[in-house]
Amino acid sequence: MRMYDLIIKKRDGGVHTPEEIKYIVEGYTNGNIPDYQMSAWLMAVYYKGMTNEETVELTQAMADSGDRLDLSAIEGVKVDKHSTGGVGDKTTFIVAPILAALGVPMAKMSGRGLGHTGGTIDKLESIEGFNVSIPTEEFIDNVNRIKLALVGQTGNLAPADKKIYALRDVTATVDSLPLIASSIMSKKLAAGADVIVLDVKCGSGAFMKTKEAARDLAKTMVDIGNAAGRKTYGVITDMDEPLGCKVGNALEVEESVEVLSIKDVDSALSAKSTINYGIKRLLKVALCLSSYMLMGAGKAKDYDEAYKFCKEVIESGKALDKMAEFVEAQGGNKDYIYNTDMLPKAKYIVPVHFEKEGYISCCRTSEVGMVSLILGGGRTTKESEIDLAVGIDIKKHVGDFVSPDEVFAYIHANSEDVIEEAKKRLLAAYDISEAAFPVEDVIKFVVE
Amino acid sequence: MRMYDLIIKKRDGGVHTPEEIKYIVEGYTNGNIPDYQMSAWLMAVYYKGMTNEETVELTQAMADSGDRLDLSAIEGVKVDKHSTGGVGDKTTFIVAPILAALGVPMAKMSGRGLGHTGGTIDKLESIEGFNVSIPTEEFIDNVNRIKLALVGQTGNLAPADKKIYALRDVTATVDSLPLIASSIMSKKLAAGADVIVLDVKCGSGAFMKTKEAARDLAKTMVDIGNAAGRKTYGVITDMDEPLGCKVGNALEVEESVEVLSIKDVDSALSAKSTINYGIKRLLKVALCLSSYMLMGAGKAKDYDEAYKFCKEVIESGKALDKMAEFVEAQGGNKDYIYNTDMLPKAKYIVPVHFEKEGYISCCRTSEVGMVSLILGGGRTTKESEIDLAVGIDIKKHVGDFVSPDEVFAYIHANSEDVIEEAKKRLLAAYDISEAAFPVEDVIKFVVE
Repeated sequence: MRMYDLIIKKRDGGVHTPEEIKYIVEGYTNGNIPDYQMSAWLMAVYYKGMTNEETVELTQAMADSGDRLDLSAIEGVKVDKHSTGGVGDKTTFIVAPILAALGVPMAKMSGRGLGHTGGTIDKLESIEGFNVSIPTEEFIDNVNRIKLALVGQTGNLAPADKKIYALRDVTATVDSLPLIASSIMSKKLAAGADVIVLDVKCGSGAFMKTKEAARDLAKTMVDIGNAAGRKTYGVITDMDEPLGCKVGNALEVEESVEVLSIKDVDSALSAKSTINYGIKRLLKVALCLSSYMLMGAGKAKDYDEAYKFCKEVIESGKALDKMAEFVEAQGGNKDYIYNTDMLPKAKYIVPVHFEKEGYISCCRTSEVGMVSLILGGGRTTKESEIDLAVGIDIKKHVGDFVSPDEVFAYIHANSEDVIEEAKKRLLAAYDISEAAFPVEDVIKFVVE
Repeated sequence: MRMYDLIIKKRDGGVHTPEEIKYIVEGYTNGNIPDYQMSAWLMAVYYKGMTNEETVELTQAMADSGDRLDLSAIEGVKVDKHSTGGVGDKTTFIVAPILAALGVPMAKMSGRGLGHTGGTIDKLESIEGFNVSIPTEEFIDNVNRIKLALVGQTGNLAPADKKIYALRDVTATVDSLPLIASSIMSKKLAAGADVIVLDVKCGSGAFMKTKEAARDLAKTMVDIGNAAGRKTYGVITDMDEPLGCKVGNALEVEESVEVLSIKDVDSALSAKSTINYGIKRLLKVALCLSSYMLMGAGKAKDYDEAYKFCKEVIESGKALDKMAEFVEAQGGNKDYIYNTDMLPKAKYIVPVHFEKEGYISCCRTSEVGMVSLILGGGRTTKESEIDLAVGIDIKKHVGDFVSPDEVFAYIHANSEDVIEEAKKRLLAAYDISEAAFPVEDVIKFVVE
């Protein structure tokens, strides 16, 4: 087999055999296939696409390229969740305690990463003493004992994906559905869970701008997961504005606790409820994801039953207690969970107002993310220091009425110098219209 | 400017500015743009093409990447010819003496290259003493004195093309019209001629399989040449069988002398003529190319007059004498021209017959080239030794009647071991049909 011939085959719209896909992934990973041939092939894939069978093979080959996490020492069906990423996405902090409280083992591996806020791990470090570097035995033991543990990414998971992604990143071949789907799923397959629930974001703050594109991506990933023998669901959720009200690190932990403290979910979600619309959206997404995970784990006979169980475990306070238990098990001060005033606070908390009145008709979500970055809440390089206290607390959402008399949002800053720019950019990220209009549901579709 | 953005632009079907094209060519040549980005861009060009303006810019930028030949010391309008390559193409040996005999300076630079036979330079080395490595002053002096000189490629002509071509060759991005056209023309522009006549081959032995594809390529190259201020013609000629009868090195010199020895061109080309059809085809192509070159040089008022002058210089023997003069000026034994029996001869000259009778309906020309390679007439690697004496002499052509009683071809071999395989492959390269059918003209179109 020669890579040259395989480039021609894909260039001319051909379909690769499993052996050919394996040859490409292994050859590129071990350095036998040079970058310049791989990038020509990737560009051909960009134009010609891949069949579902090819995409499944590519994913498997990348998952096979390094270590596979061995979760066999953990009892029960292992469930994992993956979000394609967005602004204000803190569902892991809500979903994981719910599932653990319901007896589903949650062995989470998370990253730090670059972005407008830190990763899950950074956010948890807002809690005094919390340690993400616990040894593997302790990690496994914690999961078996309290059903929830979280560590930073370890091991050499899907190194082929890492190498291919780095090349795609500099050759304008990122935007390809089979390549995106296989990249995400290769890491999920290597991470070893039996059930995978994918939260595929769509909108101005997501990689996929339209719900149709997100559905296509979800469908491809669900097909890959199922073909690999993992029960997989794809939930397409809205990212046309941040999820929840708060964007930041400590702020997102705080908001998760807020959601886990709700005492009556139905009334919180009702039209008459005075709870902020942002919290409602976050609660809805977290409940939907949790329910699919619970159902996937075989702990409920259908979605409705799963939803009921998840709701109850919030309302009873068991999920919040599980969060505290988890924090304590990893060396953190669990008082932070019951009293979020203990979390790091910014020096300046500045209200932001619109100059005119009207209805919020549009949010350029990634611009809101940029505001968090300006405030110091995220990383632009691997070496950047994150300010855990800063961020944005948005009180009004798409469809809401705003006026100069009402606070639109609070900016949490530790430096006076950045406040004006942050305010300006935050307001500029929104459009205001005179007419009211219906708002779409935060959950778009489910693919299974 | 960033290469990443330029890849996206081309990927999405955009049109590059002249500055962008320059940035890409210079950046790649000086190593600032890595292979993997260049190959992704090339694959995007493969799919999205380039406008005429982009192709002209690309050609100019590649021509500008190295030395440009300075032909200013040569008096008169400098004319060059380029063939896109085929089997049995020896027109240079006929065209160059015709033009030189008519007073047009021919400063030829030629290569050795890989292929089923050697290059122009290898073929000339069939003549005892012929030296292709004469110093530049002698080269220029010869052209001024006798109007014809030929050297091996010197200088650093269009190094960008060399580097880009090497990358295309391993990334399946050769087959792109703007890339092919700019590659050929960048070297022609750098080689400095005022008038360029392109012999664009089409058919089973050519890079372009159809005459339409060849016409498109010719049109693009003519546009490039004219945009660069060089008078350029494109002649599309048939390569659905070898040109002439003979394929080899010494054999092709011999056949060129045969053509230059014709005493009555009109009668040779007439329907009643008994001259082999292969020779007629070769004569036609050589006369057509010569006529356009002469016209381009301003030595005739129109094509018909140019054709008449070229014909006369063959019939008078002046072209053949010019060939001898040229050989002698470069140290060769000119007796070889007047007595081609002195050329290297193969040990075995073996007749080949078809087993059944019928009309030759199809020739897989590149397979005939392979026979020459099997016999040792060409190079597969730069280090291969060429056997100048071997080759094939084909007596029957597409449309001709063949039978087991008549010799179809002679194989000239220096080793008994390869004869059977060569015979078998040669016969297998042809199809025989029961019905006769009309044969198309060897000259398809002219683009100017």
